[in-house]
Amino acid sequence: MLKPGDTVGILGGGQLARMMALAAAPLGLKCHIFAPEGDNPAFDVSAAHTIAGYEDKAALTAFAASVAVVTYEFENVPASTADVLSALVPVLPAPRALAITQDRLTEKSFIRDLGLAVPDFIAVSSLDELEAALQRIGRPSVLKTRRLGYDGKGQAMIRQDMSAQSAWEAIGQAPAILEAFVPFEREVSVVAARSSSGEVTAYDICENRHAHHILAQTTLPAAVTSTTEAAAKDAARQIAEALGYIGVFAVEFFVASSGANEVLLVNEIAPRVHNSGHWTLGGAETSQFEQHIRAVAGWPLGRPKRLGRIEMENLIGDEVNRWPDLLAEPGVLLELYGKREARPGRKMGHFTRVYR
Amino acid sequence: MLKPGDTVGILGGGQLARMMALAAAPLGLKCHIFAPEGDNPAFDVSAAHTIAGYEDKAALTAFAASVAVVTYEFENVPASTADVLSALVPVLPAPRALAITQDRLTEKSFIRDLGLAVPDFIAVSSLDELEAALQRIGRPSVLKTRRLGYDGKGQAMIRQDMSAQSAWEAIGQAPAILEAFVPFEREVSVVAARSSSGEVTAYDICENRHAHHILAQTTLPAAVTSTTEAAAKDAARQIAEALGYIGVFAVEFFVASSGANEVLLVNEIAPRVHNSGHWTLGGAETSQFEQHIRAVAGWPLGRPKRLGRIEMENLIGDEVNRWPDLLAEPGVLLELYGKREARPGRKMGHFTRVYR
Repeated sequence: MLKPGDTVGILGGGQLARMMALAAAPLGLKCHIFAPEGDNPAFDVSAAHTIAGYEDKAALTAFAASVAVVTYEFENVPASTADVLSALVPVLPAPRALAITQDRLTEKSFIRDLGLAVPDFIAVSSLDELEAALQRIGRPSVLKTRRLGYDGKGQAMIRQDMSAQSAWEAIGQAPAILEAFVPFEREVSVVAARSSSGEVTAYDICENRHAHHILAQTTLPAAVTSTTEAAAKDAARQIAEALGYIGVFAVEFFVASSGANEVLLVNEIAPRVHNSGHWTLGGAETSQFEQHIRAVAGWPLGRPKRLGRIEMENLIGDEVNRWPDLLAEPGVLLELYGKREARPGRKMGHFTRVYR
Repeated sequence: MLKPGDTVGILGGGQLARMMALAAAPLGLKCHIFAPEGDNPAFDVSAAHTIAGYEDKAALTAFAASVAVVTYEFENVPASTADVLSALVPVLPAPRALAITQDRLTEKSFIRDLGLAVPDFIAVSSLDELEAALQRIGRPSVLKTRRLGYDGKGQAMIRQDMSAQSAWEAIGQAPAILEAFVPFEREVSVVAARSSSGEVTAYDICENRHAHHILAQTTLPAAVTSTTEAAAKDAARQIAEALGYIGVFAVEFFVASSGANEVLLVNEIAPRVHNSGHWTLGGAETSQFEQHIRAVAGWPLGRPKRLGRIEMENLIGDEVNRWPDLLAEPGVLLELYGKREARPGRKMGHFTRVYR
């Protein structure tokens, strides 16, 4: 268990690390950020930082010696990095969650093995296998690389007019899964946390709208039945318990309709604080960032109570230029990430409206 | 007017600077802290810091060149420091507020000249003058040094059994004022802000309980009449306008009773964010720290809306050891200041309960 004055190590220097550092400070904790050269806005709010590659063993060793626990802001932490660190200092969430969620095949298999519904999927590692899988799953379907996909990267939607070959080339001929396309009504997520004592607490279910495969807007309450909400929270709890997870995580779902009923399918697990939980900064009694820090510090979780009806919008690329209007709008909670350059598709900030 | 990416310079590296820096980050601003050697917990959450004395002209000049505006966390900024800086960069609140509030005599005279009620006071600069003043003001009365007093330092309560001479020695024979003791019912404060466009916005009036001359607890709503609340807010507005003030400030008042009526007397002005406004972190829609940053950045103010009934308590010295219980109590918002050593009388943190 950490105590005030201790240092939390964070892998990654982007906005998630930054918001974790901002949440760690009021709890009396310092942060040490480890990230490669680049635009690392988390450095601006942290007591210490190391600029080094994730494969730099000497730098990782020194980093581990300076912190009481290591956590991370992204799921693609190399296994070798996690191995070096976890031999020296607790790494939370434990690297097993990384290993499972870094590969869509092991992730989906893990979820299905828990008895939770997922879209049909088949592993494919060649054009021949893709063609065979297309025969079974049909079109439209989605080809996704097993590793390193996020925000729609490494994905190809295969409609009637796309050949297996062009899809295969579009994703770089990498090991992949072919997944049935779900004609969903809405996309929702549950952001939850599990503490070191096994306590699990979930925020209310979020409804998410994406644009160009990037989260654009999250609203609460989600327009789903209470049965669906309870099922989603229960799925999150099952996943956390099966992983022995410690920290905040998100589970993304598709909600489809089947006659009069809603059907809930797990899309993916994010073993970290999540964009669909950003509304909790000011919109919930405890933010997901504080919750994560509490969990990895070995402390009790905070109350996830939602404080009103919520609208959270991302500011992508040039949308950040809306800041003067947003600052002037009563009741808007603005969060800018301190990034130097507003490139297209880049998450520059977000804002939340809380209707109490 | 600042824009995201700009840097705010802050004089002082304690908890007020730290909470300002934590509030500046979500607005996309960086902070550069200037403070002498010591325990400076604001360094841990800021992009840059300078360790130098407030009289170090070269360091001040380099600091000024690195920031878009300078503000401060304490009112005893030396006039020479403010002069060096304000020749180079905007210093907000403007140094005039410092000059007036650093000296209890000019401060009380300024307030009285606005037509606001203050306790009777007389300037004294010798034992003879003190004896004459005691004849006029009577006992009990309070002898206060004109400069450098805070948290009860530089004060002596003169009751029936204390000689003028021992009081005069107790405060170090420094230029002082003798002030009538006010048999107050309660101590209240108004935390307010004025923007560069002249907009003034006040938080609800706070009721404060002190122990050993240090703020122990703030509660809202204060048990005062709506007339008193309106008068206190109006006094704050008058003071801000008369000073041409930009930023957050607090006005402390005594509430005494006069028959069936409440009488409001101004005790002092703090030209900075204030301990009695700490509840606004999580207890108001916009915290006093964000409000101050908005004001000195030349931006519109946020909404000061209070979110419920409030109890804020300071953690003084060893009281910080309550942190495990406070972390475990549902709904408690804990704010620790990251100080290395819990000396007696030292403000180590605070916590707020918001009853919605």
